[in-house]
Amino acid sequence: MADNKIYRASTFAPVNIAVIKYWGKRDAKLNLPTNSSLSVTLSQDDLRTHTTASCSSQYPKDSLTLNGSDQDISGARTQACLAELRTLRRQLEESDSSLPKLSSLPLKIVSRNNFPTAAGLASSAAGFAAFVRAIANLYELKSTPTELSRIARQGSGSACRSLFGGYVAWQMGDKKDGSDSVAVEVAPAEHWSDMRAVILVASAEKKDVSSTSGMQQTVATSTLFAERITNTVPRRMQEMEKAIADKDFAAFASLTMKDSNSFHATCLDTEPPIFYMNDTSRAAIRMVDMINSEAGKTIAAYTFDAGPNAVVYYQAHDEAKVAGVFKSVLGNKEGWEGARGKAVETANAPKDSQIAADRLKEGISRVILTSVGPGPIKTDESLIDENGNTI
Amino acid sequence: MADNKIYRASTFAPVNIAVIKYWGKRDAKLNLPTNSSLSVTLSQDDLRTHTTASCSSQYPKDSLTLNGSDQDISGARTQACLAELRTLRRQLEESDSSLPKLSSLPLKIVSRNNFPTAAGLASSAAGFAAFVRAIANLYELKSTPTELSRIARQGSGSACRSLFGGYVAWQMGDKKDGSDSVAVEVAPAEHWSDMRAVILVASAEKKDVSSTSGMQQTVATSTLFAERITNTVPRRMQEMEKAIADKDFAAFASLTMKDSNSFHATCLDTEPPIFYMNDTSRAAIRMVDMINSEAGKTIAAYTFDAGPNAVVYYQAHDEAKVAGVFKSVLGNKEGWEGARGKAVETANAPKDSQIAADRLKEGISRVILTSVGPGPIKTDESLIDENGNTI
Repeated sequence: MADNKIYRASTFAPVNIAVIKYWGKRDAKLNLPTNSSLSVTLSQDDLRTHTTASCSSQYPKDSLTLNGSDQDISGARTQACLAELRTLRRQLEESDSSLPKLSSLPLKIVSRNNFPTAAGLASSAAGFAAFVRAIANLYELKSTPTELSRIARQGSGSACRSLFGGYVAWQMGDKKDGSDSVAVEVAPAEHWSDMRAVILVASAEKKDVSSTSGMQQTVATSTLFAERITNTVPRRMQEMEKAIADKDFAAFASLTMKDSNSFHATCLDTEPPIFYMNDTSRAAIRMVDMINSEAGKTIAAYTFDAGPNAVVYYQAHDEAKVAGVFKSVLGNKEGWEGARGKAVETANAPKDSQIAADRLKEGISRVILTSVGPGPIKTDESLIDENGNTI
Repeated sequence: MADNKIYRASTFAPVNIAVIKYWGKRDAKLNLPTNSSLSVTLSQDDLRTHTTASCSSQYPKDSLTLNGSDQDISGARTQACLAELRTLRRQLEESDSSLPKLSSLPLKIVSRNNFPTAAGLASSAAGFAAFVRAIANLYELKSTPTELSRIARQGSGSACRSLFGGYVAWQMGDKKDGSDSVAVEVAPAEHWSDMRAVILVASAEKKDVSSTSGMQQTVATSTLFAERITNTVPRRMQEMEKAIADKDFAAFASLTMKDSNSFHATCLDTEPPIFYMNDTSRAAIRMVDMINSEAGKTIAAYTFDAGPNAVVYYQAHDEAKVAGVFKSVLGNKEGWEGARGKAVETANAPKDSQIAADRLKEGISRVILTSVGPGPIKTDESLIDENGNTI
């Protein structure tokens, strides 16, 4: 093995925001969920992780940097992903001896997000998806995105959904080893391409409880949780897949809002209670309710992950009535300065929305305008040069 | 019937604050609940309704004033109570012809609360309990408090629990006519007399949704609600009765906090979601959690009704550690000026409680210090003079 070469491959990977929420693990080690979930993959123009995976005998050891900071990769989750990917590469090498023995070389991985980490957006999904996808590219694995999703899931549960674009289901599976707990495409982005989202980023507030420990507290203590995972979510998964197939926004929106509230209800039913939404989140809910009332139909849908940020979905033709209202209220915040933000026509806030509007002005620090987008995109833009140095 | 006499009788009736919550009606007309509930009756030194019931042929018609304002008594709930009470009186009159025929005389009822209506405290419970108890006194009915609770329930569900002092269960019953949906004493106040409460009254904010319409929206739309009423509450009722029998504060507190959160969780799971707690309520929860952590055991329990006010239960010997912390944080608010407030020793706020303390200072307008207390008390203090005029 006198091979001193620097091998490199790069990818972009997207963020996804669930509309049927993942909350609860049935196996904490393998990241196996208590219920299936479904998400929309967001455009990488706005939110993405860019990752270069590289391997070489010149590297002293495996390493990962994110936004310029060294990351600890000794954790069981990262190690599980690396071991699975190396095993797949080794199988290729064993079946074709002409292939370079990359599986035994130290890896150097460099990763950057194009969005502020402080925004509290679920960056671990894009991060682990990019990590797995970049190494799979480097190793020239033949694995499908679904096969890779099984690996990414072990890094961060929701990362498995970021291996696909468009509308993505994470099927909970029922096998003990998790081999059937994988992501599948429900519909590509092109099927329903006018799905838009405005993300209302709440002013920094320390997160109450990490989602990993929070969800296990809910599983252990909420008396309402079993009903959610046994009946509520399975029914909603079916209804949501149909809403997406039919491009039925009213059904999509109703399910999205109900499932966000159901998830946060089980958090509140946890002992001690977990609160991710605050008075600003509640003002965002009120504003969406008033936008829908004013429109006389459901044209906007809120959803909240494990934090106070609101993600509001709408369709392109309703942009003025939805994003335009938020622009009229929050126009002086960061996020409207790009071409997309400038293109949004402002609309009058609904009547009686002054209290909610004032609360949003106080509690929201920036907005992000985005839309449904594709899955990971291979790129020649490398974050590591041909000598193995970080660019 | 040349009888021109003014007949009068008066009572005080208490407020009660549930520790296992009433939320949901199975029969909206009869106020029959979807689940049993359990409350602590609070001292009438601090919170009470004073009601005088009077009847006379001199009165032009039935009337009710509360805090000096004429009240509409044409509503079905009030009329149901009046009809039931008159029927019971008529039965007495029919069995003893020497009795004056009060059942056919117009009623004049005058009622006053000793606490600010604006405080958003559930005054309808004390109000309807006093209304029914005062008329029962006037009519010299032999009915037990449980029999009267069946009548008061039709006025306002939770009013049935204010016919007793101490620890009171409202048994949901299962008969269609509601005849077994009544309040019973679990234990008198003397059984566990060192139960105290500090009520943190939140600054006025318009109530989102009335509890009457809110609870029916929950019944109709929450997918988690059935689990609460079918399994969670029945189990907690048994556990709570045992905790009270054993004077086991840690068990009482744990059940109280869990049931408050469960109730609010089903509100959040309602479509559209109902929020009664706000960021100030959440700060009160955090403060109670920190008080308990600092004590190394559960010495304080929060509960929230259909509004942001926190009611914090504790035992007399823990007054400094619980009420004393709130006095150190909220000492400049209204409510500490009486002898009881002055007697509370201030205690240092728990470490790391600064954020919660600041939020409480901003969002709490006054405190009320109270304790477990007796049921309705008959009084000669009349709000109507011997000529039938309001005093």
